[in-house]
Amino acid sequence: MKRTVQLNPIGAMSLLSQLEVDRLKRSTSSELYQLFRNCSLAVLNSGAHEDNFENIFSPYEDFEINLLRRERGVKIELVNPPALAFVDDKLIKGVHEHLFAVLRDLLHMGARYEYNLCVNAPESVHTTHMVFDMLRNAEVIRPSGEANMVVCWGGHSISELEYKYTKEVGYQLGLRDLNICTGCGPGAMKGPMKGATIGHAKQRVRHGRYLGITEPSIIAAEPPNPIVNELVIMPDIEKRLEAFVRVAHAIVIFPGGVGTAEELLYLLGIMLHEQNRDQVVPIILTGPKECEDYFASIDQFVGATLGKEAQNLYTIIVDDPALVAKTIKQSQADITEYRKMRGDAYQFNWSMKIDPEFQQPFMPTHNNMKALNLHFDQPKAQLAASLRRAFSGIVAGNVKAEGVKQIREQGPFEINGEQRLMSMLDELLESFVVQHRMKLPGSKYLPCYKVAK
Amino acid sequence: MKRTVQLNPIGAMSLLSQLEVDRLKRSTSSELYQLFRNCSLAVLNSGAHEDNFENIFSPYEDFEINLLRRERGVKIELVNPPALAFVDDKLIKGVHEHLFAVLRDLLHMGARYEYNLCVNAPESVHTTHMVFDMLRNAEVIRPSGEANMVVCWGGHSISELEYKYTKEVGYQLGLRDLNICTGCGPGAMKGPMKGATIGHAKQRVRHGRYLGITEPSIIAAEPPNPIVNELVIMPDIEKRLEAFVRVAHAIVIFPGGVGTAEELLYLLGIMLHEQNRDQVVPIILTGPKECEDYFASIDQFVGATLGKEAQNLYTIIVDDPALVAKTIKQSQADITEYRKMRGDAYQFNWSMKIDPEFQQPFMPTHNNMKALNLHFDQPKAQLAASLRRAFSGIVAGNVKAEGVKQIREQGPFEINGEQRLMSMLDELLESFVVQHRMKLPGSKYLPCYKVAK
Amino acid sequence: MKRTVQLNPIGAMSLLSQLEVDRLKRSTSSELYQLFRNCSLAVLNSGAHEDNFENIFSPYEDFEINLLRRERGVKIELVNPPALAFVDDKLIKGVHEHLFAVLRDLLHMGARYEYNLCVNAPESVHTTHMVFDMLRNAEVIRPSGEANMVVCWGGHSISELEYKYTKEVGYQLGLRDLNICTGCGPGAMKGPMKGATIGHAKQRVRHGRYLGITEPSIIAAEPPNPIVNELVIMPDIEKRLEAFVRVAHAIVIFPGGVGTAEELLYLLGIMLHEQNRDQVVPIILTGPKECEDYFASIDQFVGATLGKEAQNLYTIIVDDPALVAKTIKQSQADITEYRKMRGDAYQFNWSMKIDPEFQQPFMPTHNNMKALNLHFDQPKAQLAASLRRAFSGIVAGNVKAEGVKQIREQGPFEINGEQRLMSMLDELLESFVVQHRMKLPGSKYLPCYKVAK
Amino acid sequence: MKRTVQLNPIGAMSLLSQLEVDRLKRSTSSELYQLFRNCSLAVLNSGAHEDNFENIFSPYEDFEINLLRRERGVKIELVNPPALAFVDDKLIKGVHEHLFAVLRDLLHMGARYEYNLCVNAPESVHTTHMVFDMLRNAEVIRPSGEANMVVCWGGHSISELEYKYTKEVGYQLGLRDLNICTGCGPGAMKGPMKGATIGHAKQRVRHGRYLGITEPSIIAAEPPNPIVNELVIMPDIEKRLEAFVRVAHAIVIFPGGVGTAEELLYLLGIMLHEQNRDQVVPIILTGPKECEDYFASIDQFVGATLGKEAQNLYTIIVDDPALVAKTIKQSQADITEYRKMRGDAYQFNWSMKIDPEFQQPFMPTHNNMKALNLHFDQPKAQLAASLRRAFSGIVAGNVKAEGVKQIREQGPFEINGEQRLMSMLDELLESFVVQHRMKLPGSKYLPCYKVAK
Repeated sequence: MKRTVQLNPIGAMSLLSQLEVDRLKRSTSSELYQLFRNCSLAVLNSGAHEDNFENIFSPYEDFEINLLRRERGVKIELVNPPALAFVDDKLIKGVHEHLFAVLRDLLHMGARYEYNLCVNAPESVHTTHMVFDMLRNAEVIRPSGEANMVVCWGGHSISELEYKYTKEVGYQLGLRDLNICTGCGPGAMKGPMKGATIGHAKQRVRHGRYLGITEPSIIAAEPPNPIVNELVIMPDIEKRLEAFVRVAHAIVIFPGGVGTAEELLYLLGIMLHEQNRDQVVPIILTGPKECEDYFASIDQFVGATLGKEAQNLYTIIVDDPALVAKTIKQSQADITEYRKMRGDAYQFNWSMKIDPEFQQPFMPTHNNMKALNLHFDQPKAQLAASLRRAFSGIVAGNVKAEGVKQIREQGPFEINGEQRLMSMLDELLESFVVQHRMKLPGSKYLPCYKVAK
Repeated sequence: MKRTVQLNPIGAMSLLSQLEVDRLKRSTSSELYQLFRNCSLAVLNSGAHEDNFENIFSPYEDFEINLLRRERGVKIELVNPPALAFVDDKLIKGVHEHLFAVLRDLLHMGARYEYNLCVNAPESVHTTHMVFDMLRNAEVIRPSGEANMVVCWGGHSISELEYKYTKEVGYQLGLRDLNICTGCGPGAMKGPMKGATIGHAKQRVRHGRYLGITEPSIIAAEPPNPIVNELVIMPDIEKRLEAFVRVAHAIVIFPGGVGTAEELLYLLGIMLHEQNRDQVVPIILTGPKECEDYFASIDQFVGATLGKEAQNLYTIIVDDPALVAKTIKQSQADITEYRKMRGDAYQFNWSMKIDPEFQQPFMPTHNNMKALNLHFDQPKAQLAASLRRAFSGIVAGNVKAEGVKQIREQGPFEINGEQRLMSMLDELLESFVVQHRMKLPGSKYLPCYKVAK
Repeated sequence: MKRTVQLNPIGAMSLLSQLEVDRLKRSTSSELYQLFRNCSLAVLNSGAHEDNFENIFSPYEDFEINLLRRERGVKIELVNPPALAFVDDKLIKGVHEHLFAVLRDLLHMGARYEYNLCVNAPESVHTTHMVFDMLRNAEVIRPSGEANMVVCWGGHSISELEYKYTKEVGYQLGLRDLNICTGCGPGAMKGPMKGATIGHAKQRVRHGRYLGITEPSIIAAEPPNPIVNELVIMPDIEKRLEAFVRVAHAIVIFPGGVGTAEELLYLLGIMLHEQNRDQVVPIILTGPKECEDYFASIDQFVGATLGKEAQNLYTIIVDDPALVAKTIKQSQADITEYRKMRGDAYQFNWSMKIDPEFQQPFMPTHNNMKALNLHFDQPKAQLAASLRRAFSGIVAGNVKAEGVKQIREQGPFEINGEQRLMSMLDELLESFVVQHRMKLPGSKYLPCYKVAK
Repeated sequence: MKRTVQLNPIGAMSLLSQLEVDRLKRSTSSELYQLFRNCSLAVLNSGAHEDNFENIFSPYEDFEINLLRRERGVKIELVNPPALAFVDDKLIKGVHEHLFAVLRDLLHMGARYEYNLCVNAPESVHTTHMVFDMLRNAEVIRPSGEANMVVCWGGHSISELEYKYTKEVGYQLGLRDLNICTGCGPGAMKGPMKGATIGHAKQRVRHGRYLGITEPSIIAAEPPNPIVNELVIMPDIEKRLEAFVRVAHAIVIFPGGVGTAEELLYLLGIMLHEQNRDQVVPIILTGPKECEDYFASIDQFVGATLGKEAQNLYTIIVDDPALVAKTIKQSQADITEYRKMRGDAYQFNWSMKIDPEFQQPFMPTHNNMKALNLHFDQPKAQLAASLRRAFSGIVAGNVKAEGVKQIREQGPFEINGEQRLMSMLDELLESFVVQHRMKLPGSKYLPCYKVAK
C-alpha cells in the first residue's frame, strides 16, 4: 500500500505566483526531475551513515515525489518516504526545510535561470551574480551581521580521533560566537557543527548558524547532517566553491582526501591573484597531533608545486583547537575594517577576484582528465587550477554517480603530465589511500585513476 | 552652495548584486530617470498640502538625485533636497523608506522586467504575475496573516466634514484590528489611516499596516502621506487597480470625484464576471449624512448603466462608521473560509478573474478618448470597462503631468457616445465640479473634457 | 438586567500565588475597595471629556467590580460597565490593561506594603524604594534603554491654541525618538502624546512609550487618555511627583493652573538642593506666543520668591516646538555621560536628592492649609515646599472628591502668611481664574481658597 | 597576584533598589555568605566531572566573591576564579547567568523572606507560595505556555550504557518539542538535556528549556551542567522536590541510587493522597535492557512497602526511548484538559495536594535518623514519607558537606525499624552499593549508614 504525505511550502517557496508554479510543474517532466527526486531522497536520509549512493537509494525504489498545484502555490507530495525522517508520522521540521531548499534551488531557481537569460554582461559577472542570487534567495545573505562565518573543510571519511578534534575546534569556535559553514555530510563537515552547538548553548547564542552548501551530484553521497539549519544547493561544484569563498570570514581546513585537496588548491589558486593580495581571510590548516605528518606532506606538495608564496597564505596549527578559534576571533576586527575600507559587504566578499578559469565548470570525462595541463611551466595560479580539476575528477570517480558509472564502463582516468609533478601527485594520492581518506571504511578502495609515470 | 545627503539602502534594496547595481546605474541615463527624480521629489514633499505638480516641483528645480555605486551595493545621493523631509539634518525614516521604495519599484523592478522578458505565457497570466511579484518584492504579501486588509477609495479633494468622517471610519476599523490600504495622497486616502492609527493604539496593535499603492504619474499630485508604512509604485494605473483588488479583503468607497468613479466602475466591471459570482469581498459605499444625495446619484448612474445586478454588489451605509467596520469585521470568517475552500492565498486573491480588457493599459490621448465605445448595446462588463477609461482620462487631464500638457496643447478631450448615456455622464461630471471634487479648493476648475450631446 | 463581563488577568497580574489572591480577595471588603471601584470606573471612562468626578460617576451607580478567585489566579468581573469602553461587546485592549494596572497598584501592591513592612531603614530610603518598586513592578523601569523619557506637565484645562501647541511639541519630540510621560488626563497631558504618536509613526518607532503616572484621588478627574500604554497609580501625590522626577530625562512645562504650579515648585525646591547642583535635567517652560505674558508672570513669581538661582534652573522657550525638542535631544549625551560617571541607572535617577519634606504626604485639611509656613524668612527650598503644598491643597479643593467635600462643608481654605508673599500669590491665582485654568470651561469657577491679606 | 573580574548584573538582578542592595551587602557578612561563596564556586566549576566537594573546592582556597555597591545596583567581583569558566578572559555567558541566579536565590530571595515574614496564613500555604515566588522570580513560570516540561530524575553516577540511554530518551523528548527539567549535575541529570538539544535542533526549536532545580547543600556535589539555561536554587530539599512536582507535566525516572529512591518515594507518597487521585501526571520508570532487574527490584520494594495502589501510579518501560517520549506526548492533551477543567495554571500545578509532612524540612542528624518511624503499621503515605527521609539522610551522608562531616565525627547513621522492612531496605541499599550507584567510580564506597537487623 502506498504511504503518502503532503507538505506545505515554507520559506521563500510559500510565496509563488501561478506562473512560477506552472514552470515548476512543467520542470517535473524534464530530466531535472530525476535529480530532484534523488536530492530529495538524500535529504530524507539525512543522518544515515553511508557514502555509497547506491546503498542509500536502493531500499527506496518505490519512493516518488510529486508537486501538487494549488491556487495559492505548490505542495510537495511524498510517496513511500523513508521512515527515519518522521517522528510519530510527522516529518522532522529540519528535513521539511531541507526538502523545500532542494525544490527552491533545483527547480525554482533552475527555472529562473532558464527563462531569464541575461545576455549582456560578461560571463564572470554573471556567474558571481548567480552565486549571490542563490544565496540571497536562500536568505543566507542578510543586510547586516558580523564577520563571523567560518568555513570548515575536511574529509567526510576521517578517523575517530580526527572527528573528535573537529568537534573540539567547533566547540571553541562556538564559544566565541562564531558560526559554521561546511559542505554537508559526515566527518569533518559534521564535527565542527556539533561542537559549535554546545559552545553556542553555553554562550546563550540562540541563533547559531550551521550553513551547508552542497551541489546536486554530491548531496546523495554527503547528505546534510541534521544540525544544518541553512541549506543551499548550488548548481555545480565551481559555484559551490565560489559560494564558500565569498561567504567565508575565515577558512579552517581539517585533514581530508581528494575533495579537501581540491578545495585547498582552488583557494590557493585564487588567493595568489595579485588583486587579492590585501584580502583579509585567515586560512588555517589544523588537526590533532597524529596529523602532523599529513600536514607536512600537504605543505611540501604545495611548496613544490605553487611555491613559497602559496605556503605563506596559510598557517598550520597542530593540536590546539583553542588557538585556532582565538586566531580567527582576533582577525574579526581586521576583516570588518578591510570590508569597510573597500566599501564591501560584510556578508559577501565582492572584492575577492576570481578568474574565469576557476569559475567554468569542469566535466571530469576521461578525455578532459587526460587533457589536463599538468606542467610546472605555467603561472602558479593556472597550475593550481589544473591540479584542482585533477582532484575534482577523482572525487567524481570515487563517489559521484556519473563519475562512478564512467569508471565502471571505461576504467580508471588517466592523468598525464610532467614527470616530477606526476610523482609528487602519485605519492600524495597514495598516502590518501593508505590513510583511508578516499571512502568510508568498510569497503576496499579501488583507485579510479592512474597516474602516468 | 550645494547641499548633499547620502543615504544607505534599506529593505530589499540593501542586498543587490553588482550586476543589478550596474543595471540601476545604466537606467539613470534613460528617460526613466526623470520619472525617478520626480517621484523621489514627490516623496520628499510628503505631507505638503498641494495637488498641483507644478507648484510642488517648481521650488526645487535645482534638486538632483544620484545613484552611487559601492562594491557592496548602491547609495542614493540627494542634492538640494526639500528641507521639510529632515529633522535636525537627518532624513525622516519613513521618507527614507519611501525613497528606496521608489528606487526599487521604478528602476530596479523596471530593469528586472526589461531584461527578463517572459515570452511563453498568456499575457494575462503575466500581468498578474507582475502585480504579485512587485507586491511580494515590496514585502507586502506574506506567507501568513489574517484577512484584514481594507482598501479605502475616495477623493483627494473632499470637504472637512467628509474628511472627519473618513477618519472616524478608519478609527472604527482600527479598533477592530483591521488594516488600511489606500492610493496615497490627502483626503480620503489619508483620513482612514490617521483614524486607524488611534484605533490601533487603543487596541495595542503595534504592527498596524498602512499600505499605499500608487503609480508614477499620480504620485506627484498625491504623494504618500507620512503614515503610509508600506509603499508600492505599480507601473501603471491598471496594475495599480489590480493590486488593490487582489490584496483587498473588503473595499470601502468614500465620496470622491472622477478617480473614485474610475475605481468603482473598474471594480463593478470585474465583479460582474460570472466566475467572480461567489467571491466574498464586502463593498461598502459610505459617507456622512450630507453625502446621502451624492451616493443616491452614483447609485442611480450605476443602476442606469450597469443594472440591478451591479447595484447588488455593494451596500450603501450613510453616517454610521461603526456599522461599516462591524459589517467588514463580521465578514472576515467568510472570506477566510472561501479562500480555504478555493485553496487560495489569504493575502492575494488569485481566484478573482480579471479580463484582459481591465488589464491592458489605456493611454488617454485625444484620439483614444474620442474612440471610446460608450453605448448601452454591449455586455455590462464591457460598458463598465469603457466608462472606467473615460473617467481615467479625465483624471489624467485634471492632475497628471502628461494629461495636463495634452489638454493645454489640444484643448479638452471629446467624449462621444449614445445620447442618453452622454446626458447621464455629463450630469454626473457636472455634479463633481459643483461639489469641488475635481481639484483641491483654491483654484477655479476648468473642465478638461467635453461631453458630446 | 445585569450585564457582566469577565476579564482574564494580563501582565504582572497573570502570575499570582494563591496567597496573593487570598489577600486581594480580602482587600475587597476593605474601604480600599471603594477607591478601587472608582479608579476602575475612571479608567473605563477613559476618553470622556469631563473633569467633574460626580458627572463621571453618577450615570454608573449600578456599576460593580468583583474579583473572582480561580485555582490559577484572579479574574475581574465587571457588572454594568460603561459601554464606551467596548467594541462589539469586547473590552478595548488598552482599557483592559489599565484595569489590571489599577488592580495591581491599588490592591496588590497595597497588600504588599501592608504586610511587608520594612522597619529598619530610614523612611526616606523606604519611600524611594517604594517608588522604584512600584515602577519596576509595572515594568516601567527596564535594565537598559536610552535617556529618552520626557516628562510633560501642564494644565488639563487649556485653550485650543495651547492644546495644539502641546501636540506640536509632542510631534517634534516624537520625530526625535523621544518618549512622553504625563500625569494622565486631557489637555497638556494628552496633547504631547497625540503629537508624539504621529512623530513616532513617521520615524517608524514601533515601541513608542506613553507613560501615565497618576494617583487615586486625581484619576477620576483626569482619567488616562487612550494613548497611554503604560499606566502607574502611585499611592499619593508626593510619590507621584517623585516618580516623575526620577524617571525624567527632561521636563517640559506647558501652561497650566495650580497643579502645574505645584509641580514646578516641587521641582525647583528639589533642584535647589546643593547635592543636585550637577544634575543634568533640562527643564523647559514653553507655550505659544499668546503665553508669553503667562510665563513672564510665573517667572517673576519664581524670581520674587525663590530667587535668581531658581530662575536659572529653567529655560523659557516661546513658540518654537522644534527648538524645545532639539534642545532636549542635544542634552541626551550629557545625561548619559553624567549617569555613567555617577554609576547611576539610565532609567531611574537614584542620585537625585529629595529631602523628606518633599516626600511626606501633605493632607490638605483646613487646619493644615492655615498652618502653612508662608514667609520669606526661611531657606528657599523650604519655602518652595510650603508653596507646593498650598497649590496642592487648591488642586484638591478644585477637583478631588475628598477636597471638594471639605470645601462644601467648611467653606474655602484660608491661606495665611507674609503680606508681600500673599499679594503675589493672590495675583497669580487670580490670573489662573481669569484664564480659565482652574476647571474645564462650561462651569463658573468658585474659588476654594481665600488668601488672607 | 590577585586576578579580579567584575560582572554586571543580568536578569532580575539588574533592577534592584538601593534598599535591596543594602540588604544584599549586609548579608555578605552573615554566615550565609560562606554558602554563597561555595555555591558560586560550584557554578564556576560547571562541567568538571567530580562529585567530591572537597576535591572541587580545595584548588580554589584563595577564591573570593564580593558584592560591589553602585548607585544603580550591584556588581559581583570574583577574585581568583577558576580559569575553566572563561574564554579568552571573558566569563562564559551561561556561567555568568548561573552566578546571578545564585545571588538571586540565596541572598536576594533569602533577604526577602527574612524581612517579609508573612505571619497570618497556614504554613503549608506559605511554603507553596514561597516555591511559586522563587520560580516566578526566576522567570521559570510564565503566564502562558504548553504542558511540555518533563522532569527527569536519576543517578548522578550511572554506567556509560545508562548514560547513553538517558541521552536517547532526551533526544526523543526533544524531537517532540518537550522540555527537560532535572536536578543539575552529571549522569541522568545531564544526559536528557544533551539529547534534547539535538532533538530540538532538528525540529528547529530555538527556545528549548533546560531547567535545573537544585538546593545549596547539593549544588557543590552536583553543579549545573553547561546546558542548563534556567537555574533555580531552592532553600532546601523539600522545597526543591515540591518545585519539581509542581512544574512537571510528566516525570521520567532513570536508574539511580538513594537520591532517586528518595525522589520516587516522595512522589508516590504525594500521589497516594486521595485528593490527587485524578491528577494527570504520567510517571515512567525507564532504562536500557540491562536495567530490567534493577527496576524489578525497585518495583518489588514499592509493592511490598506501599502496595499495589502505589505500583499502579507508574509505568515501567524497558529499552524503548521512543515509546517513553510518545507516551508523554500523547498525554499532553489530557493534562491541558485537566488543568482547564480545574481552573488551574498550565505552568504550576496548584491543585496537587502536598501534605505538611512532605513539606517540613528534615534534618538528617544521627538522632533524627534513628527516630524515623519505619513500621508497616501506618498509612502508606506516612510510611512513604518516613522512607523518603531515610534515603534523604543517606544522600546527605554520602555527598553533602554537613552530612559527610557528621559521619566522619560520629560514625554511620543507625536506621531502626520493623525487621521485615529493615531487611528489604538493606537489600535495596546493598544492591545500590554493588552497582556503584552511591558515588562516582574511582573511589571505594564506605556506607554512611547501618541498618539495624
